[in-house]
Amino acid sequence: MSDPRALLKPAARVSGQKMDVWTIINEGAAASPKQPIVNMGQGFFGYNPPQFILNAAKAALDKVDCNQYSPTKGRPRLREAIADSYSPLWGRKLNPETEVTITTGANEGMLSAFMAFIEEGDEVIVFEPFFDQYISNIQMPGGKIVYVPLHPPKNGATENTSSSEWAIDFNELSRAFTSKTKMIVLNTPHNPIGKVFSKDELLKIGELCVKNNVIILSDEVYDRLFYVPFTRIATLSQEIERLTITVGSAGKNFYATGWRVGWLIGPPHLLTYVSAAHTRICYSSVSPLQEAAAIGFEEADTNGFWEAAVKEMKEKLNRFNEIWAELDLPFSDPEGGYFVLVNMSKVHLPCDYPFPDHVKNRPRDFKLSWFLIQEVGVAAIPPTEFYTDENAHIGEDWLRFAVCKEDEVLDRAKERLRDLKRYIKDS
Amino acid sequence: MSDPRALLKPAARVSGQKMDVWTIINEGAAASPKQPIVNMGQGFFGYNPPQFILNAAKAALDKVDCNQYSPTKGRPRLREAIADSYSPLWGRKLNPETEVTITTGANEGMLSAFMAFIEEGDEVIVFEPFFDQYISNIQMPGGKIVYVPLHPPKNGATENTSSSEWAIDFNELSRAFTSKTKMIVLNTPHNPIGKVFSKDELLKIGELCVKNNVIILSDEVYDRLFYVPFTRIATLSQEIERLTITVGSAGKNFYATGWRVGWLIGPPHLLTYVSAAHTRICYSSVSPLQEAAAIGFEEADTNGFWEAAVKEMKEKLNRFNEIWAELDLPFSDPEGGYFVLVNMSKVHLPCDYPFPDHVKNRPRDFKLSWFLIQEVGVAAIPPTEFYTDENAHIGEDWLRFAVCKEDEVLDRAKERLRDLKRYIKDS
Repeated sequence: MSDPRALLKPAARVSGQKMDVWTIINEGAAASPKQPIVNMGQGFFGYNPPQFILNAAKAALDKVDCNQYSPTKGRPRLREAIADSYSPLWGRKLNPETEVTITTGANEGMLSAFMAFIEEGDEVIVFEPFFDQYISNIQMPGGKIVYVPLHPPKNGATENTSSSEWAIDFNELSRAFTSKTKMIVLNTPHNPIGKVFSKDELLKIGELCVKNNVIILSDEVYDRLFYVPFTRIATLSQEIERLTITVGSAGKNFYATGWRVGWLIGPPHLLTYVSAAHTRICYSSVSPLQEAAAIGFEEADTNGFWEAAVKEMKEKLNRFNEIWAELDLPFSDPEGGYFVLVNMSKVHLPCDYPFPDHVKNRPRDFKLSWFLIQEVGVAAIPPTEFYTDENAHIGEDWLRFAVCKEDEVLDRAKERLRDLKRYIKDS
Repeated sequence: MSDPRALLKPAARVSGQKMDVWTIINEGAAASPKQPIVNMGQGFFGYNPPQFILNAAKAALDKVDCNQYSPTKGRPRLREAIADSYSPLWGRKLNPETEVTITTGANEGMLSAFMAFIEEGDEVIVFEPFFDQYISNIQMPGGKIVYVPLHPPKNGATENTSSSEWAIDFNELSRAFTSKTKMIVLNTPHNPIGKVFSKDELLKIGELCVKNNVIILSDEVYDRLFYVPFTRIATLSQEIERLTITVGSAGKNFYATGWRVGWLIGPPHLLTYVSAAHTRICYSSVSPLQEAAAIGFEEADTNGFWEAAVKEMKEKLNRFNEIWAELDLPFSDPEGGYFVLVNMSKVHLPCDYPFPDHVKNRPRDFKLSWFLIQEVGVAAIPPTEFYTDENAHIGEDWLRFAVCKEDEVLDRAKERLRDLKRYIKDS
């Protein structure tokens, strides 16, 4: 060996990464003179899960079996509760043994799906913008990503628009399928756009996948928060269902992003391999919080929790979004989830503003984000983190705000955002 | 495309697996006439974590931030608690920011380490027998495993031996290192053998790794349960520490295998990449139970929990192992952990016994295990699951019993094992 020290070098999959958005935001927040900053960046909840679920978690902690290994596919009670809760939405009885599997959060569930089906050189179609973890999770087993952009509303810079106006060009999508296409990733309600894919859009996507025999991984972690009719692609036809794995999250459903309980619903001929991959990645998932999530589902279906959750989040969106009229900044009204995209093209950034190097070299939305944190004291996420360099121009005038925060935090954010007025060109 | 249906085929990494031992044992248990069977198979605890840790978990569930995403590297309080607890054992102050990272159980921690350093064709040395998850976790990033057997005590079939007698042939180990060797996996206290690697053995292993610049992944999840002096390889020299990542587990330390909280201790130039891999695999780990583990460490170091845990487990080992003298079956006395290997070469299996096909075709220990479950009603693990086919003969007369069960369960197991007498040849 000429240079044995070289052997300590990391694998390509973890070396040479750009600084990620979360680190930049956290650094920016720490450096801001506006302490404490109002954090509307990351999509964690600013309040606790409902009491009935916390009580269930505490009760589970007193049971011996709830503190020990769960079966690798998940605790039977949770699989049954999910099957029971989703069967009416599927229009048929789901089999909790073979059609539901539990994962360590939705993230590890999606990684397990990619690990189960992707081999070196297989292609996966992903819409832009995308949730950033998809990319590394597809690349880990050697997959190649084929990007298809969602085209923004034409008037998004000048007037309020709807997240429904972010559009698929179906010719573009159709051309993205090749003989190497193994999977497509959907996300509805969409992060960061808030788009709820229409039944018509999903039917067209489904038809393309049936024609090309492509597996559909449908990330529906915001599936209980929609403000327009919500369609689940797995329910559109038997041909589509045969190809579809639906991803869910107790963290998103029950306001507990730190619990790491997710699940997949899909046909046995797909799930059996995903479960096998999951076993190799995490072995099993957190046991007492699975039990709590089971009880959560059992009770939420009867105590009106889902309806209350929609009403509450819609009120938060309305409450927060009032500020944009005041500032004359247009936003994209979400059809689902808890993110709102705001178009900041009218915001004038001082040309001599001292941005740090790792912000200066990124698209305009990173500068907007940094500027807001420093000058206004509100953190929001620059969406070009969720774009390839090629398509980053689509997102560079927008910022993503998460409204899953206490009302008084939303009010404080609005109060602070009023300081932005003097940087807005034509106001 | 000639056959589009072929596109649904799973990746090689999850297809064509043998039925795993846990499934066989569970099936066997369900089929046994001796209901309920006494399960001494899997190493989960038959009792709850201590009350101070359960209380900490319940208190964490009432805190908003404890229910939301933890930082990807783990909650600061847990990293600090681990650094504080292990600093005296390391003989210097560990830096909680850079030398400790939290993972979703020890399993995902080890996978993260392999994902961080292994590329296609890199070699990893693993001792046999091995914990089965190592193998798939090394293969996932494309690693090649080079096996080195631990040689069993010569008189293990006829008299009681010590787990220390399972020996490394250092010539064999030395030959296993090649220019492609990137990592070696240690496990001390060892599962399933119960061997605590001696300081002398660890020094020799460490020297080989320093000479070859090979990363040491030391799985020390049973590190608080040892009955002879326990040496941590990372503490032997600076040259060795520079190469060593030590793996720990709250599940094993605090009787909560279902909590999925693990950690890694190691130098920043290694951990930084492991953390990056972990972020891509699970994003972050379960938040409220991290907080509970933090409080667990803070209190265990002062309330005598570690000493009580050693005393209690040693008593369980002694209590259970009395039965082997009665049956005149020799066992390998463990120096650490909670597994005991018992040599069953004297047990006569009826030659016409109706073993199912998936058991019939496996080594003798699988038949012994199945037979015990059906005829005696006690489940134990066949250790050849932890061997390659080539070396399976070493383990085929042994069975592994987990004693981390309530005393009355151990007593019931002994009572039932007395039924084995009539199948023992020279008794």
